[in-house]
Parts: sequence; structure tokens; C-alpha cells
Amino acid sequence: MSVTVLLLLLTLCAQGGYGEEKEEAQRPGHVSVVIVGGTGDLAKKYLWQGFFHLYVNQVSSGNTFSFYGGGLSPADTATPLLFEILKAVSCSKDISQERCALLKEQFLRLSQYRQLKTLEDYQDLAKHIEKQLQEEGMTEAGRLFYLSVPAFAYADIADKINGSCRPTSGAWLRVVLEKPFGHDLRSAQVLASQLVSSLKDEEMYRIDHYLGKQVVAKILPFRAENKKFLDPIWNKHHIERVEIVLKETLDVKGRIPFYDQYGVIRDVLQNHLTEVMTLLTMRLPMNLSSNEEVTQNKLRVISSILPLGKNQAVIGQYQAYKSEVQQELNKTKDHNTLTPTFAAVLAHIDEAQYEGVPILLISGKMLDERVGYARILFKNDIFCLQSHNSVHCKPKQIVFYFGHGSLKYPAILVSKNLFKPVLADGEWKEVTEHADVSVLGLPVSDYYVQTPTKEREAYAELISHIFAGRKNSFISTENLLASWDLWTPLLNGLSSSFPRIYPGGADNGDMLDIRLKGKDISYNSEVVIINPDQMGGTSANGFQVMQGKFRSDDMVSAWAEELVERLAADMQEVAEAAVRESGVFHLALSGGSTPLALFHRLALHHFSFPWRDTHVWMVDERCVPLSELESNFYTLHNHLLQHVRIPYFNIHPMPVHLNHRLCVEEDGGAQLYEKEVSSLVNGSSFHFVLLGVGYDSHTASLFPGTKVDELGERLVALTESPDKPHQRMSLTFNAINRAQRVALLVMGKGKHEVITQLSRVKDNPVKWPVTGVKPANGKLVWYLDYDALLG
Amino acid sequence: MSVTVLLLLLTLCAQGGYGEEKEEAQRPGHVSVVIVGGTGDLAKKYLWQGFFHLYVNQVSSGNTFSFYGGGLSPADTATPLLFEILKAVSCSKDISQERCALLKEQFLRLSQYRQLKTLEDYQDLAKHIEKQLQEEGMTEAGRLFYLSVPAFAYADIADKINGSCRPTSGAWLRVVLEKPFGHDLRSAQVLASQLVSSLKDEEMYRIDHYLGKQVVAKILPFRAENKKFLDPIWNKHHIERVEIVLKETLDVKGRIPFYDQYGVIRDVLQNHLTEVMTLLTMRLPMNLSSNEEVTQNKLRVISSILPLGKNQAVIGQYQAYKSEVQQELNKTKDHNTLTPTFAAVLAHIDEAQYEGVPILLISGKMLDERVGYARILFKNDIFCLQSHNSVHCKPKQIVFYFGHGSLKYPAILVSKNLFKPVLADGEWKEVTEHADVSVLGLPVSDYYVQTPTKEREAYAELISHIFAGRKNSFISTENLLASWDLWTPLLNGLSSSFPRIYPGGADNGDMLDIRLKGKDISYNSEVVIINPDQMGGTSANGFQVMQGKFRSDDMVSAWAEELVERLAADMQEVAEAAVRESGVFHLALSGGSTPLALFHRLALHHFSFPWRDTHVWMVDERCVPLSELESNFYTLHNHLLQHVRIPYFNIHPMPVHLNHRLCVEEDGGAQLYEKEVSSLVNGSSFHFVLLGVGYDSHTASLFPGTKVDELGERLVALTESPDKPHQRMSLTFNAINRAQRVALLVMGKGKHEVITQLSRVKDNPVKWPVTGVKPANGKLVWYLDYDALLG
Repeated sequence: MSVTVLLLLLTLCAQGGYGEEKEEAQRPGHVSVVIVGGTGDLAKKYLWQGFFHLYVNQVSSGNTFSFYGGGLSPADTATPLLFEILKAVSCSKDISQERCALLKEQFLRLSQYRQLKTLEDYQDLAKHIEKQLQEEGMTEAGRLFYLSVPAFAYADIADKINGSCRPTSGAWLRVVLEKPFGHDLRSAQVLASQLVSSLKDEEMYRIDHYLGKQVVAKILPFRAENKKFLDPIWNKHHIERVEIVLKETLDVKGRIPFYDQYGVIRDVLQNHLTEVMTLLTMRLPMNLSSNEEVTQNKLRVISSILPLGKNQAVIGQYQAYKSEVQQELNKTKDHNTLTPTFAAVLAHIDEAQYEGVPILLISGKMLDERVGYARILFKNDIFCLQSHNSVHCKPKQIVFYFGHGSLKYPAILVSKNLFKPVLADGEWKEVTEHADVSVLGLPVSDYYVQTPTKEREAYAELISHIFAGRKNSFISTENLLASWDLWTPLLNGLSSSFPRIYPGGADNGDMLDIRLKGKDISYNSEVVIINPDQMGGTSANGFQVMQGKFRSDDMVSAWAEELVERLAADMQEVAEAAVRESGVFHLALSGGSTPLALFHRLALHHFSFPWRDTHVWMVDERCVPLSELESNFYTLHNHLLQHVRIPYFNIHPMPVHLNHRLCVEEDGGAQLYEKEVSSLVNGSSFHFVLLGVGYDSHTASLFPGTKVDELGERLVALTESPDKPHQRMSLTFNAINRAQRVALLVMGKGKHEVITQLSRVKDNPVKWPVTGVKPANGKLVWYLDYDALLG
Repeated sequence: MSVTVLLLLLTLCAQGGYGEEKEEAQRPGHVSVVIVGGTGDLAKKYLWQGFFHLYVNQVSSGNTFSFYGGGLSPADTATPLLFEILKAVSCSKDISQERCALLKEQFLRLSQYRQLKTLEDYQDLAKHIEKQLQEEGMTEAGRLFYLSVPAFAYADIADKINGSCRPTSGAWLRVVLEKPFGHDLRSAQVLASQLVSSLKDEEMYRIDHYLGKQVVAKILPFRAENKKFLDPIWNKHHIERVEIVLKETLDVKGRIPFYDQYGVIRDVLQNHLTEVMTLLTMRLPMNLSSNEEVTQNKLRVISSILPLGKNQAVIGQYQAYKSEVQQELNKTKDHNTLTPTFAAVLAHIDEAQYEGVPILLISGKMLDERVGYARILFKNDIFCLQSHNSVHCKPKQIVFYFGHGSLKYPAILVSKNLFKPVLADGEWKEVTEHADVSVLGLPVSDYYVQTPTKEREAYAELISHIFAGRKNSFISTENLLASWDLWTPLLNGLSSSFPRIYPGGADNGDMLDIRLKGKDISYNSEVVIINPDQMGGTSANGFQVMQGKFRSDDMVSAWAEELVERLAADMQEVAEAAVRESGVFHLALSGGSTPLALFHRLALHHFSFPWRDTHVWMVDERCVPLSELESNFYTLHNHLLQHVRIPYFNIHPMPVHLNHRLCVEEDGGAQLYEKEVSSLVNGSSFHFVLLGVGYDSHTASLFPGTKVDELGERLVALTESPDKPHQRMSLTFNAINRAQRVALLVMGKGKHEVITQLSRVKDNPVKWPVTGVKPANGKLVWYLDYDALLG
């Protein structure tokens, strides 16, 4: 054998790059820290402690510090307050008492209160900083403004900082912001654009303190370290579902003026739980410390989440909330509030990897226990023939346990029948001594448990990241807007929904248990707490679908949702009959926005639709490339075809783009499509044609004035629309009227006028094109929603 | 508002047609029943009892009967044996002792033994029947031959029946056959074609006694009666998995000569369990009594089952089996047998409705308990926030319980948190008094339980169906062959596999527990019982993938499976890098059979492959319509594209079929494809091109003798193949050599010669086309399996 072969044993190296985060190059020097709102609750509880922690860690780094607590009050009243706060900071256990006393004393000396109200105040602060730098001959490293103030004040303060407090000579400026960052997409955009006029993107640090929690911060590194175990199972084939849960026992008493404007979705789901979901499901970056890659991957997954509508959420409100609102907002006894204090939302990611995996985001006040976790429950992939009690027969799950609950400490738990996770560094340790507690259905001893060697407070952690310039741990503008983009439609959809009222605590029983139905979610129990205001809304029951006649053809009418359900069911019935009889179903679909709801219904609910034997044809097409947004086919593809398993060969877009040009008569696209129809469809008679009606009564792309007679026996023709793009390709009346079933779907109040006219006029296809729809041997059914029918 | 609307409340009627089975029109008259093998075990145990039951039910119907027990023995030795059997038949409880005695006496009088060995014997029987008819002036209704004999005798007996025992004057002939019907597809086809030369299809009744079990026979009616509950949940979105299990405690001692030829898969899985699977998953017929519809729907689902390979099965053999074989087959102590006595097989149905739903078929001898059931376990669709012990938090399942086990009676059980099943008729009743037992993880009291009001024996049931001509309850030829078509490749694949040896009974412990891995199955525990004969097979470990050089380019070599894994991984790496860098991945794929394993690997294991951003191009195409089997694109579609979510617009088949004709130069297909490539692919430089090599060293569709130089700068060209179809379209060397990465995949011993030649020759693209592959700025990697490399 003469093949020259050099044999080398292959070493499969793990892809490198999961190292420590790359820190922004820092030049040592003087750092001025300004906490605006420096005597507020958050500052008192977390921020000063966090900055003291930073100071302690940096004291021998060559950097020097000044700390300013700022506020609206004059210095003489606020300084004593600040002093009390500063006195209360504490050292970590590994620092001796003497050293701690010394450090505290230095920290106190470096800290002072300044009134920060007017532009002059900020100018004075800047002068003060510069004077100090000059006097002490220090190089400036940077200025850190922590805005611990209500969000409405951000733009103004940012403007003042920009106008007067920017460091010169290349030192950095960092401005830290706390949520809420708006209360919907619009307000978040406004706020973002206000801020961007004062601050550069890289100067803004938006805090989500969940990203400072050690377990949350460990999600991506954990995924990277355990890649070889997780890669094969981190997908729809193995994950049964994901639960991201934050249960609280507290109420919101005392915070109502804020809370009642926001509610639990804006307060917890839009930010904390969304971040956790993102970290769990984003594509693992090659380089965990690449801010750009992390941001891009985060954005990608957020934008892949299927739209959240009312059917993807249930909301609740604890019973006492209403009276708390009446009290704190000085309202009368008949004041009502719809603000949810509990919400469960079902998200799905529209990526092949996670297709169909339910992701539950749940949070509420006044529940039975305080606990936060993200649980990835895996499918049961074991069949136990005899040994039903063995470890390997038990559930498999990974739990990111943020803290509290039965376990009482933050931890990452991996079922022992999954894998033993890697312990990558000294920051985390394995727990082997277990209390006799159960975590999410399994005794702790059934898990491998890892916990941080040293528990660190989230704010202290994030403050050190701000100082290090690690933008990864903060919310980028793009990220924030993408999240609001996701949540805003749901918030709008829920704005007039009545939350289920729950008593609070253990009394909630199973009232808040949830049922998943495909992509929808509902409360499991049918206990209906009837809110008096709610009474009007349920009258449609028992009167959901009507049948009758319209223009002497059959008519079905209902509210939009039921109408679409009915049309989809009818279509499936016809499809199944056609497949039974002839082995194939030929379906011609229209463009426009009306059929979208139908496409969704078919894609998400009609799992047994005989797609494999269905041929999809176009009723009409705009003369634009197929892959452009405006194309009817593009819409059909995105909303239906890509979600079902239909063979490539059964898809028949109209050839509007032959020879790299659009609908040129000589290219013979219409003739080509006609040939395709007649060679595949028996007698060119489609089994089902779906049509709509335009405001001008056009149907397919047959507009008023189209010379119907000139088309003769043609099945497909180029036509002209009064609207852009003017050029169209369309099935002709000849083709439509050969069909076995034609459905005319008309929905929305906007169509009421044309429907009213159509009910009066005689057939005149040139003036009222839709009146030309007259199946010769088939059946025409009008599907009109109540809005179109009744106005 | 002048819209004329007639409002009618819609009544949604259930679709009718699920009535009693339509019985074949019977003319009353005389019926001759012949049990060939009338003194054998089966006849003794079930058949005479069944026919007595039939007689009792028909005694006042106007029909008259003669019963013949036939056999090879002469009448004088066999008649006493038959008499003993007949004496033992019993009446059902609702018949009085006196009446029973009378009926038995009549039955005995109507029954006689006849030797049935030679053609003359059959001719005599026919004469006897005709004489009796004549003498007693009876009209003949029909003749029923029950062949309770080894399958090898079927063809001969059928031939004799056909030759001499056909009734005249329009009476029916029915011939009943018992499994085994062959032991693989080939033998089943031979047997079927032998039988078809003697009998018409409608005359043959192939028995699978499982179809006579009341619970099995109830599956379709249950599905129909509970359609409204089941329709929304009977799909991949709700079903977690299906288990069809028949556990036995007995061994096969005494039946070895038969069993060792067959094993558990042929004995139980190919027939009984397959039938149950079919009934559970077939499309529900509109009309349950339409034999044609039921058969078609059955066939459809069987043919949708994904191919079963070695990775979809595990097999076992109880420890004592080997010595039992040695004993009963008179073999020496070194005789080995691979016949499995236990098997678990994982099936998947390639229909959107059941996509990804694992269906386990499991059966074995010498297990810990005797039980048979089919269990549909539903996904957990409830999230219990607080009330973890409520009924609705428990598992949801439907269990078709064939009998035995802890419950001890046949029943259909539905978890109370699913729905309360309909009780359609008096044949079934609800059980409300429960023993304190647990069925598949839930106490019986957590189920709605239905059981037949009267337990009926499967054979008696089927005999009454034969008499009534209900072909639905029997195995059609098409059905049988489809089932063998499914199972034969697996049986072949396993023919040299070593079963895991298990001790039997409770001692099996968790040895036979099973793990599902995507589409594959394996034993969960890694206990390896080393069979001495097995020692040679595992040497490849630690020597799986080699890297080296071939023709001065990089080479990767491995056994076929690892090679494909590696290529798929490399391809994904390149794809991800391309998407990261440019947002898109351009992949050109070759035709032929070599890449099939790669396509499967990508479809089934690479869930995170960036298909959404991938464009798939063809390296070459045969000039046939795309939807024909021979088309490269068709193969690619069926094996890869239909399984992944790639946008329609990203799929680029070659335009070999323009203007309804194939590869006509003037249609400019090659130029069109070239234009498409250059407009979408940056610099016409594909990110990845997958090529193969033919025996004549051709690659793409560039064959020896192709005038390479004449193609010039062309990217795509029409070429000529020495093989049919001769006309091809192909990327040119110019296109291939612009690629960033080219993979040359060569597998199989058949390619060893060309690989050996290629290792020696100089570049000469006209003589050795593949030597023209020389990426200008890219990298070429050879993927050679050991068979191709080492011969």
C-alpha cells in the first residue's frame, strides 16, 4: 500500500477563550464617585456598602478616591444623615477589626455630602473636583455618577453632568442608572434618546441587580465549563421545560405610588426574569468576555421569542392590594386597580434548538414562600423496566437557585443522574453535607450542589464591575429596547384585563396553578372570582358562530377569533376529504394581512393537517422579489410555511422574478404558472381557494376596472393595482371559479362599509370585482367577522 | 343596516359514522368448519372452544354446521383425541347446565375427525360435504378452513383446498392462517405469493390474536368515542411518549425448536406490538367499519415509521436460554445462540403530528411480572405554584391494560386529571370499587377505569369475526408486508449482535432499564456482560479519528461513523464562523449516496446548526425533474432539508427543468444559476463545498474527458456523464476552487482502488477530474473512511 499517510492522533481541544473577563485598560489615578440620591433607601441599604467594599479592594491599587453623596436637600440637614449611613458600613470577615476601623475612618474622611440641585451645584462640584486634583497634583482616572433617583430625573441630571461635570484630559465618565428604564417601549425609547444626547453609550451603566447575583452571573460560565455535558442535551429534544420563578412573601405596602404604576411584569419579568431567560437560552458566546458578542447573542435570542399576547399570560392581584392602593393613593372605596401583583407568562423561542420548549416566567407578591430559581427540567429519557426506585428513574434537572427557600443559600444544583458538573475555579465549591430538605421535588442529596465559596452582595459585585468597566454585567440600550419591544404588546394587551384575586400566603392553595395549552397558558382551576366591573365581557358565550346567507351564498359569522378557528377547521375538513379521495389537496392562498390569523391558527393548532399531501399555490403576488417583506409569498412563508412540514416541491410561489427582472410580459411568468397549475391540478380545479376583499371590493389582484373579458380562458394574468407596487400577478376569475371551494374571509370594522355595499349591489365584476367570484361547480362561503358584518 | 342576514345558531355535530361494524351480507345455510391441525395445542386450548361458542350463538340463526377436525394421523388414532378435546368445551355462565349439556351433545354430534394428508383426503372431504348437502337438501353458506399447522404447510394445504374444496354455487370460502407469516420480508412475500395463487385476498383471514383482545379491539372505538377530548392532545405537543409493553415471566422451554428460529422480535414485536402501535397512531378512520379505510390508514402510519436500525434497539437473552437451546436442539456445550428473548425498540413516526414522540415497544421472557399494556404518557402541562400534592399536579396518562399485572383484569384507565371517558354502550362498564393497587405509578383510584362487562376470550372473539366476515380484525397482506418491510432491516442488522444476558425474574434489577438518546436507544447501565465471542469487536476505541496528509492536502480518517460525526462538526464550526463574520453561510452540497449519512447526522444531531442563515446550493444535478427520485435535490430534500428549519428562499436547486423541459442549452439554466450564485454569494466564493469522488475519479459532475479549459470563467456548466441520466448540470472547477473550504468525502471499500490510484498520480483534471480541485485561497480537506483508505 503506497498511500503516504502521516498518522497523528487527534486531540480534541476545548475551544479556548472562556477566561477571565478582559478589563478595560485602567490608568491608576484619582476617582471621584458621586452617588446622586446618596441618602436614599438604596444608597443606604446597598450602595455605600458597595463603594466601601470597592475602596477596601482598591486601597493599595494606586488609585485614590473621593466619595460624594449628592441630594436635593441642603448640606446642613443631609450631612448628618449621610454620616449615619457611612458609620454603618462593615468589612468582610477576613479583615481584622483594627484594619477595618482604619479603613472606615479613611473612607469617612474621603466622603462628603453635596447638594446637587441646580446646574450651579453640578458646576461647583466639577470645580471642586478639579481644584482638588490640581492642589494635590493628582492624575484623574475617572468620574463615576451613580443616579439613585427616580427615573424621571435621569435626563435632567445626565444633561447637567454632560454640561458641567465631564472630566477633561481623557479620564473616563461613567453614569450608573437604576431601573425603571421606562414603562413601555415608547417611554424607554424617549428616555434612551434623551440620555443619548448627553451621554455616550459606553458611558452608561444600566443596572439590573440580578446580573450581580452570583448564581445568575455564573449561568454563562457554568454553561461554558460544562459544555461537553450540556451541548447534547441543551435543546428541544431533551429539555421538557424551563421555569424562571421569583416568589415573594411580602406585599408592596408603602411602595404603592410607585408599584401601582408598574406592577409585577414591569417590576420583575421585563428585567430580572428576562435577563435570566436570556442567559439560559442565548447562544453561548465563543468568548464570554466579549461584550459585543454577548450583546449580539442576547439580542438574537430576545428577538427570537415568539410574540407574547394575552393568551401567553395570566395575572393575579392579592386581595388586600386594592385597599392598600385606596389608602396610599387617597382614593375612595370604589376605586379599582388592575395592576397585577402576580403574573405567569409562557414564552417560546422561535429557534429550531428550542422549538416547542415552554419557558415559564413567574413572579408574585404575597405567595407562600420566598424563593428564586431557574429550573431546567429535562425530559424523562429512561424507561425503567423493573427497578422503579433507582436514582436513574428519577427526574433530571438543573436548578439555578438564587437563594432563600428551603435551601437557604445560593447554589447550582444538578441531578446526580445527569452529570457531575465541573468545578472550574476556587470561586465555587461543592457542598457535600446536606440538610434534610427537598428542592423542587428531589432531596438535596440527589443533586450535585455547588455554592460560591464566598457569598457576595449583588450591588457590591456590580459596583466592582462598573469600576472595572465590565459592560457585560449591564443592560445595553439595544438589549433594553428589545426587551421592551417584547413586553410592551403584552402589557398593552393586559391593560384592561382583570387579575384573579388571591388571598395571599398558604391560603392561595391551587388558585394560581397554571396550565399550558400548546402556546397558551391559563389558570388551571376554573374558580372565577367575578369582579363586578367584569360582568359585561362574557356575553358572547353560546352565541359564538352564526351561519346564514350573504349575497345568496353561505355565510359564517363570529367574533374574529372564533371565525378563524372555524375557517381553519373547515379548511382541514376539505383537505382531509381531498386527500382521502385523490391523495392530494390543492390550496390557493391570498396575500394581505387578513389571513395572518388563519395562518397562525393553522401553524399552531392544526397538527394533523395533511401538509405532506398539500400543494400551496398563490392567489396573487406583488411584483417584488419573493424574499422581500412586501411579497405575499414572503408573508405566507414566515407565518405558515416555515412552521409546517410541507415538501419543497409542493410550494408554488408565483414566478414574478424571472431572469432577474420583475413581471416582464416577455418572460411569460403568468403562462408558466398557468402551465404549472394545469399540469399538477386536476382540471385546474383547486380544492380550496382563500380570498379576501379590499376596501374597493377587489379580490385576488383583480381590481376595479380590470378588463375581465379580455382575460378569456387564461388562468393567470398580470394585473395593475391602484396601490404600490402597481404590478401584480393574479389568478383570474376563470381559475377561481373552477375551484371546488372558495372562502371569502373579511374581517375588521374597516371592511364594514364595503360589506354593506356588497350586500346591495348586483353582480358587476368590473366595478365590484369580488362579485365576479361565482364558482361554477363549487361552493362559495363568506367568512365575515362581526366587525365587518355589523360594524 | 340592510344586510340581509338569516341567523342560525350553529350546532356542531360530531361526525357520524362510528357505528357497529358493517357485517358482510350472509345468506343463512350450512357452514362446514374444518380445523386443519384439529388435535394440536392451539385447537385444544382455544379453537374448539371458540367454535363451540360460535355454534351456541348461531344455533337459532337459521344456519346449520358441520365441524371437522383434520390432521395427518389416521382417524382411528386421532378420533379419541378429538373426542377428549370436545368433551372439555364449556358454556358461558349465563347458560343453564341443562341447556349446556344439550348444546354440547349437539356439537359433539356435528363434529368428526378426518385425516387430511393427501390431495385425495381433501377431495374426499369435499365429496363428503357435497353429499351431505345433497342428502339433507341444505343450501350451502360457506366453508371455513382454520389452518392450525406450521406455516411451511400453508402453501400446500391452500393449494389442495383450492384444487378440491372450493364450494360451488356462490357459497363463501374462508381460510384462516396463524402466524408466523414468514420470518422476514422475503419469506413473507414468497408465502404471500404462494397463497395468492390458491386463494383470493378476501378469502384469507390472517389472525393476530391480539386484535381479538377486548382492550386492543377497543382502541379505535375508544379514540372515536373520546375524539373531542383526544383530538387536542393526541399529538407531539402533548404526548410525552408511548410505551407498548408485554412482559412475561415464563421461559420458552419446550418451544425452543420454534423459538430459536424466531426470537422475541419476530414472535411479539413484529406482529402484536406493531398492531397496537398502529391502532394507537393511525389516523382515525371516518368510518371505523370501512375495512378499506382502516387498512389504508394503517398502512400509511406503518410506512411513516422512521427506519429501524441497530441504534433503535437493544436485545437481551435470559441466562438459562443457551443451555435450553443446547439441550432441546441437541447441541454441544460450545454452541451459542444470539436469539433475543428480550427486546426494546424505539420507533418514531415521521408525521408532523407525532414528530419526536418516542414510541417504545418492549417485550421479554423471564421478567419480573406478567403484564401487557400500552401507555400514553402526556407531557406535564401543569405548573403547581404551591399545591404540589393536588391531583392535577400528578402525571397524566391513558393506559390500555391488556390484563394480568397488578390490576388483574383488562381495562382502559384514564388519569382523572385528563378527562372522564365516554361510556358508549353496554359492552363496557365503569369500575368504581378499587383494590389498593397502583398501575404505572398512580393508585387505581386516580384513574377512571373501564372494563368489559363480559370478559371474552380473544380466539372466540376472532372466530365470531371470521364467521361475520369482519376483515378489519385481521391482518391484510399489504399490512403484513409493510410490517415486515419495517422490521426486516432491523432483524438483519441485529443478526450478529450479542444480546445482553440477564438472570431472569426480580434478579434482573435495573439491567434492562433503557435510555433514549434522541432517536437512539441503549441500555441505561453500562454493565457489560462480556461474551467470549464478542472480545474482538471493541479494539477501535482510542483510535477513532486520525489526521494526516493525502495528496499534500489535509486528511481526516476514521471509521465511517466517526468520520461523519467529525465532518458534521467541522461543517458546523465553519458555518458558525461564517455566520458570525458575515451573517450568512453558503454551503454547496453534492449528490450521490455518500453524503446521506452526513445529512442524517446533521438533521438528527446538530440542533444548533445555523440553518436560518444558511444558503444551500447544489454542486451538481441530474437532468431530471426535481421531484423525481433520481434527482440529487430530491435526495437532499428528503434526507436533510425537510427535517431542518431553513427558509424557502435559502434553498437553491439547480434549474434543470426550465420551461417544462430538461437542461436545454437555450433555456440558459446554467447561466441562470451562475447569476444567482454571483448575486448572492460574495465573490462567488462558497464557504463550504462538499464533494465526493466516483470510481472513475469524477467529482461534482465533472467526468473524465470533460474539456475543463473550455469552461473558462464559467461557474456552472452542462456536462455529460457516462452513466444515465447522461445530462448533468455542475459547478465548474472555477466555482469549486473559489471556495473557502472544500471537503472531499470518500467512504467504502469500493473506493479503495481509486484512492490508491489518486495517491500516486499527478494532477490531471481531464483524466483524473478530482485532481482539479485546488482551492485558490481556501483549504481542501479529504475525509476518507478506513475502508476507502486502507481497503
